[in-house]
Amino acid sequence: MNTLANDTFLRALRREPTEYTPIWLMRQAGRYLPEYNATRRRAGNFLALCKTPELACEVTLQPLERYPLDAAILFSDILTIPDAMGLGLYFAEGEGPKFERPVRDEAAVKQLAVPDPSGELRYVTDAVRTIRGALAGRVPLIGFSGSPWTLACYMVEGGASDDFREIKTMLYRRPDLLTRILDVNADAVAAYLDAQIEAGAQALMIFDSWGGVLADGAYQRFSLEPMRRVIASLKRRVDEPLIVFTKGGGAWLEEMAGIGCDAIGVDWTVNLGRARARVGDRVALQGNLDPMALMAGPEQVRAEAIRVLDDFGAPADGAGHVFNLGHGISQFTPPDNVAVLAETVHAHGRRLRKGGASASSL
Amino acid sequence: MNTLANDTFLRALRREPTEYTPIWLMRQAGRYLPEYNATRRRAGNFLALCKTPELACEVTLQPLERYPLDAAILFSDILTIPDAMGLGLYFAEGEGPKFERPVRDEAAVKQLAVPDPSGELRYVTDAVRTIRGALAGRVPLIGFSGSPWTLACYMVEGGASDDFREIKTMLYRRPDLLTRILDVNADAVAAYLDAQIEAGAQALMIFDSWGGVLADGAYQRFSLEPMRRVIASLKRRVDEPLIVFTKGGGAWLEEMAGIGCDAIGVDWTVNLGRARARVGDRVALQGNLDPMALMAGPEQVRAEAIRVLDDFGAPADGAGHVFNLGHGISQFTPPDNVAVLAETVHAHGRRLRKGGASASSL
Repeated sequence: MNTLANDTFLRALRREPTEYTPIWLMRQAGRYLPEYNATRRRAGNFLALCKTPELACEVTLQPLERYPLDAAILFSDILTIPDAMGLGLYFAEGEGPKFERPVRDEAAVKQLAVPDPSGELRYVTDAVRTIRGALAGRVPLIGFSGSPWTLACYMVEGGASDDFREIKTMLYRRPDLLTRILDVNADAVAAYLDAQIEAGAQALMIFDSWGGVLADGAYQRFSLEPMRRVIASLKRRVDEPLIVFTKGGGAWLEEMAGIGCDAIGVDWTVNLGRARARVGDRVALQGNLDPMALMAGPEQVRAEAIRVLDDFGAPADGAGHVFNLGHGISQFTPPDNVAVLAETVHAHGRRLRKGGASASSL
Repeated sequence: MNTLANDTFLRALRREPTEYTPIWLMRQAGRYLPEYNATRRRAGNFLALCKTPELACEVTLQPLERYPLDAAILFSDILTIPDAMGLGLYFAEGEGPKFERPVRDEAAVKQLAVPDPSGELRYVTDAVRTIRGALAGRVPLIGFSGSPWTLACYMVEGGASDDFREIKTMLYRRPDLLTRILDVNADAVAAYLDAQIEAGAQALMIFDSWGGVLADGAYQRFSLEPMRRVIASLKRRVDEPLIVFTKGGGAWLEEMAGIGCDAIGVDWTVNLGRARARVGDRVALQGNLDPMALMAGPEQVRAEAIRVLDDFGAPADGAGHVFNLGHGISQFTPPDNVAVLAETVHAHGRRLRKGGASASSL
């Protein structure tokens, strides 16, 4: 069970030598794949797909059948925890996730409790177990959760937001209430990720999708610190590598590198070479192609992928970079471009390690 | 005509000594003010308000009647240039600006031409002249434009966008077409800002609202370089100070400081002290309170304003910081909080210059 045919991704996260640069893509099991849409139709809707382990397993493996990706990621939703807290998650057509009972006052905050991962959330660990079995050691399986702050954004706003007015009003007027929510969320995320490891996840990722909307100072207090607590709690029990990704968090890479994670995800506004200089050898880096670069023709996809690899530069000890997009793959991506991308990353990653001239610098 | 009762803002932009930190707010004439909403109702709609110089003048002056702000900014829309290019600007209820004829193919790009500021755009320079007369030297008047890239986003997308798929597909597939649009836009923006100075504007600001969605590398080529060309063209003819603001541009402050502008606007994710260390004495800085901090109570507004001022620190030569929000003021802002903010910025700015302990560090 513990033998992996391909552990390149795990070694890169641990900054150990690898023969090439591993690649996986955020939302790699998704709407750009016709086979995903077919399974989703069979499930009836998105939530049913998440909550049926056999179907979640099926879509998790679909991109691996098409592309030589170096990791699988659990197919699930970012909002499983607040759903299990009883807030009433639902998806309004074309509007994204919403909660029937947003958390906006003292009474609602007081009622929040950490959901038991073996109770309401059992379908998640069941999916992890099913996927691990089906993967049969081909590549590692990544478990994940939203960050305490990002979960709180949805819980307080009641859905997606342009200005985050509800949660920021709470942040500036009643930081005590927000802190209480974040405390519960941090405990919930730690227990949830711990259960995913227990069920077989071989790496973890925390998606801090909305940390980048916070002011400097507020980010450190309301997003980074709760993530630090999650990681401290986890690292007492498990040693699987953990990635933290704050979208729009380029200003805070040094601080992110200090909260105990093994790798940092960066979006496409960040130059990977500069990011590497800033975090030194404290963490590996994951990223950071603009997902929209995949809308171009194959030649341009190749050139953009090589540019990202060259920005990071030759991994001094053969490791430290996991190739990914800077955000989830778009539903409008031509599937053939993903094949071009994966092949280019592997081939150019090998060239870089041999000290060969990069195609982009010829 | 050239004597100003209060030129603090202009001196701060030029990094000359000032007695206190000047303040103005992006979108300070706006929907949070009941008197603005009354004038807008009289105008009929937003575009009519922009295109009627007397009414644009009226709303420009409204916030100055309420608050001791140190600058006025021309009331206008960011999309006047593409509107004058004939793309058919309209506002769909609750959906923001849209264009009837987006620019998406070679034929549409070929038809683009620089609009004459004394033709279709005459209402803008008329408004500038009217406002300058009405201001009668109280505070300086800021003229503005969208950046070439930001205008191109609306022109190609046909409206607001979540993923900028249309323009980024063009960027990655047909950079030659995008470059042609940006060339026309740069010439148009330079002519437009030049005409605003001619009509009486005493400072200029370029709003690069969407530069922050670009990948590192693409930002420099498709947003920064066209802005550099605009500034180079302007600075041959005028010497009024110019501010560049790329929302989400914290990664590129050093490069922004090198394109000939006098000041850089920064959003709230950037720590002002660190930003100051990065740009040195090459440019002044403008910003950067989170607009949502104005949703709090007066005590918290005061504390947050002081934190921003203290982050910048004591202006060594008494200048170099213009206080502002990191984005436009929200329509939901309680108007009384703006009074608290302006008063706090002036009072604490004086204290900082006297070397007094800051309230936040007591």
